[in-house]
Amino acid sequence: MNAVIQLLQSHRSIRKFKDIPLRKEQLEAIVTSAQMASSSSNVQAYSIVAVSDPDKKQTLARLAGNQTYVAHNGMFLVFCADLNRLQIATAQHGEPFHQNAESFIVATVDAALAAQNAAVAAESLGLGVCYIGGIRNAPDEVSRLLELPQLVYPIFGLCIGVPDQEPTIRPRLPLAGLLHENAYSDEAVRSGIEAYDRTMHEYYKVRTQGRTLTNWSRGIADKYRKPVRAHIRPFLEGQGFRLD
Amino acid sequence: MNAVIQLLQSHRSIRKFKDIPLRKEQLEAIVTSAQMASSSSNVQAYSIVAVSDPDKKQTLARLAGNQTYVAHNGMFLVFCADLNRLQIATAQHGEPFHQNAESFIVATVDAALAAQNAAVAAESLGLGVCYIGGIRNAPDEVSRLLELPQLVYPIFGLCIGVPDQEPTIRPRLPLAGLLHENAYSDEAVRSGIEAYDRTMHEYYKVRTQGRTLTNWSRGIADKYRKPVRAHIRPFLEGQGFRLD
Repeated sequence: MNAVIQLLQSHRSIRKFKDIPLRKEQLEAIVTSAQMASSSSNVQAYSIVAVSDPDKKQTLARLAGNQTYVAHNGMFLVFCADLNRLQIATAQHGEPFHQNAESFIVATVDAALAAQNAAVAAESLGLGVCYIGGIRNAPDEVSRLLELPQLVYPIFGLCIGVPDQEPTIRPRLPLAGLLHENAYSDEAVRSGIEAYDRTMHEYYKVRTQGRTLTNWSRGIADKYRKPVRAHIRPFLEGQGFRLD
Repeated sequence: MNAVIQLLQSHRSIRKFKDIPLRKEQLEAIVTSAQMASSSSNVQAYSIVAVSDPDKKQTLARLAGNQTYVAHNGMFLVFCADLNRLQIATAQHGEPFHQNAESFIVATVDAALAAQNAAVAAESLGLGVCYIGGIRNAPDEVSRLLELPQLVYPIFGLCIGVPDQEPTIRPRLPLAGLLHENAYSDEAVRSGIEAYDRTMHEYYKVRTQGRTLTNWSRGIADKYRKPVRAHIRPFLEGQGFRLD
């Protein structure tokens, strides 16, 4: 196992940071690394808003469901899918701009690939990171706060900073439950869930000194038995995205 | 600049590979690294189909628009957004399964974060990679070929293998054109396009010995002036995804 793979495989989200701002050259190294991720046909359909303003960070922390580490970190990056840049480029040549579910996927994936490079770059500098999907609790307010124009939407945030905790690594699904050979196997998925339920039952039990006796599939059922963030589609439409 | 950041910043897509299959331990190191990427609320809503079967690779190469490197590489991974696993887990507890645009984003992002870790892990092993969005040219056929069930869709492929070429690194948008400070700046985006157009004009000119005199925004306009892959939305619906 080389040092890079060791770094990737020792990832855990950090939810408590020291009160040390990210330095300019750190931010630049991180975002320049993000930019070097692949992009669909080189469209680079994303933008990053680096939020250092303490008031804006406080607001974002509240909107994300009172996650204090959104306000207290070295820097908070908001990754946005961005078709606005492509529309401007297209309009400059007097052409109409067409978008649909495909361009929505392209922009969302471009942003995610860039973000993961940012996360890896940050961790290579000894920093910790935590993705914040919680900003999709209130995407309208987040968009207004960050002055996002039409055709830009905030996908997730990324807290970056000097770690002030040492969490353990969370086990993942067994490899066989998600890596298929030449064809998808429903059976492998089912065995994977079963094995992972045992692993996570033990993990929760140990972490909570026996107080939490649940497993992964129970948590999934609790999450998906009711609609989650049903406001996303209307929000996206309001932001000018077409999903047809 | 540390070795990890150097690796990230020296990425370029490889489109010609030596005829050397990926070894089992390489594949495992790559996919185990992929798994350690962050996942929204630990739902791990993705699957990977590793395609080694030469006939299937040939078919995928044709479907992706006759990209020969999809057939000729060390291994071809297909990254899929996977809500099927979550639905099975939810059904096991007798609960109804709710999905919408939010869960579509979660699954797409989870898969992309994992893929980028896979790409970085592969490159750390001296291998080259190339993302293949072209499998979305014919997502129905790809899904049938890989026996993807309902609630699973193929987002992109990833060619992995021993490089048999040394392409140059493609310039990216200027940092200021995509990194915003506390608020999105349309002006910065416009200046970014302008500067990048000059960069890419020069890049294309040099790469084609003066034969190609275009720039980035012209390429974007040519791409987006007509609908791209308008079949994606009906395909997703047929595959059981809801985008409401």
